[in-house]
Amino acid sequence: MSCQMEAQGMTKPDRVTAAVLVIGDEILSGRTKDKNLGYIAEYLTHIGIDVCEARVVPDIEDEIITALNALRNRYTYVFTTGGIGPTHDDITADAVARAFGVGISVNEEAVAMLLERIPRQELNDARLRMARIPHGANLIANPVSKAPGFRMENVIVMAGVPAIMQAMLDEVAPTLETAVPLTSQTVEVREKEGDVAAPLRAIQEAMPSVQIGSYPFFEDGVYGTRIVARGRDPEAVRRAAEMIGAMAAELAAAAKSADKSA
Amino acid sequence: MSCQMEAQGMTKPDRVTAAVLVIGDEILSGRTKDKNLGYIAEYLTHIGIDVCEARVVPDIEDEIITALNALRNRYTYVFTTGGIGPTHDDITADAVARAFGVGISVNEEAVAMLLERIPRQELNDARLRMARIPHGANLIANPVSKAPGFRMENVIVMAGVPAIMQAMLDEVAPTLETAVPLTSQTVEVREKEGDVAAPLRAIQEAMPSVQIGSYPFFEDGVYGTRIVARGRDPEAVRRAAEMIGAMAAELAAAAKSADKSA
Repeated sequence: MSCQMEAQGMTKPDRVTAAVLVIGDEILSGRTKDKNLGYIAEYLTHIGIDVCEARVVPDIEDEIITALNALRNRYTYVFTTGGIGPTHDDITADAVARAFGVGISVNEEAVAMLLERIPRQELNDARLRMARIPHGANLIANPVSKAPGFRMENVIVMAGVPAIMQAMLDEVAPTLETAVPLTSQTVEVREKEGDVAAPLRAIQEAMPSVQIGSYPFFEDGVYGTRIVARGRDPEAVRRAAEMIGAMAAELAAAAKSADKSA
Repeated sequence: MSCQMEAQGMTKPDRVTAAVLVIGDEILSGRTKDKNLGYIAEYLTHIGIDVCEARVVPDIEDEIITALNALRNRYTYVFTTGGIGPTHDDITADAVARAFGVGISVNEEAVAMLLERIPRQELNDARLRMARIPHGANLIANPVSKAPGFRMENVIVMAGVPAIMQAMLDEVAPTLETAVPLTSQTVEVREKEGDVAAPLRAIQEAMPSVQIGSYPFFEDGVYGTRIVARGRDPEAVRRAAEMIGAMAAELAAAAKSADKSA
């Protein structure tokens, strides 16, 4: 993937990168199993944004700020999840405001959104917390439960509840800069990873613009390896997949002739 | 949780901390959904090790080394997953050796482990890669597929395949330093998060040694909130849970009398 390509010194003028920052004690205690990272990663990859790093931090303002500043200065976008509800442990908006050195207060547009769902007499101080938005941020609509996310420069702040996060991602995606999406082809071979490793390394060396990954499996009593070729040049990906297919055929033929001679 | 307690200036002499470092392009592309972080977090929390941070990095040596050095200098332990197979994209062992400034070579004890499963004539160069271990590391047995993990000082290097990672964690756990495990109590209330937020904040302020988290749910047509009190002092956790229960009863009574007067 192109995080790697840059590290290998290849220029990618059309490259858009991202980091995911998952915020919440409940993920680090294992009480809640995070489902957002995998979803966001797949979604962004498909639209042409490369996720290059992810971090999970607890509900501690200094930890959130440190991670935010490290990531937002390094990648095109940072997507955060979690910590924008009404309770005392929801501190993401304040952390974002401090990270950017801006003020934070109740945003009238956000209040109007909350009032679409919450009767005015139930809009207590706790619920109003969900309308506290850092100054200069743009709201991200929440079609599920109304309390909005927001975007502050290159930082996109979303809810932790998967259904709400997914709806917010749909809202914000059309506004994002994207690059040519990665193309990938998967070749499944009935060979163990240790048997394909050497020819695979040779193919990788011959095709530096394609990133080749291999993932062993054991299914229905059969050992095999799924080999994924991925890159921005569809023709190069196609050629790499062809070479991998040829390698698999050769290994199968060699195994057959070894059986015969045995 | 106690990551937070330390940030609040409380001393925890018996505290053991950890970070999880997930290594692999396939997690960041969304192709593979990580299941290891949640498992490790829950496992370590139960035995008295607090997971304070997690990171996911791609298969790029410099990225792995930077993350490893940041985490191993900050926490008691770092648990890594992924990148210890036989193919060209498996570079974790080399990254660990470079991070610690030690050499790396084929380890005879690791070869003996591989030979328990792999016939000697199939032990090619690629498979021997799985026996390359940084100098000074101790092996972690792999009862599933034999290729070992290893521990280098406070860094525990495990496989990415969940079943193998889990077996390695079982192997290494009895050798780890642990603190008193966190106790937690969950109180489920039939109130929306925005209605419990204010009394919950008051309880949190009254019970600073207990960490109180709240997680809204909507199930079978009912809105509610699961409130989790967590801490190292079981008596304080019990008292916090009692206060949360009393708060829920009070809110329910108030709602009932409001219904009556309506």
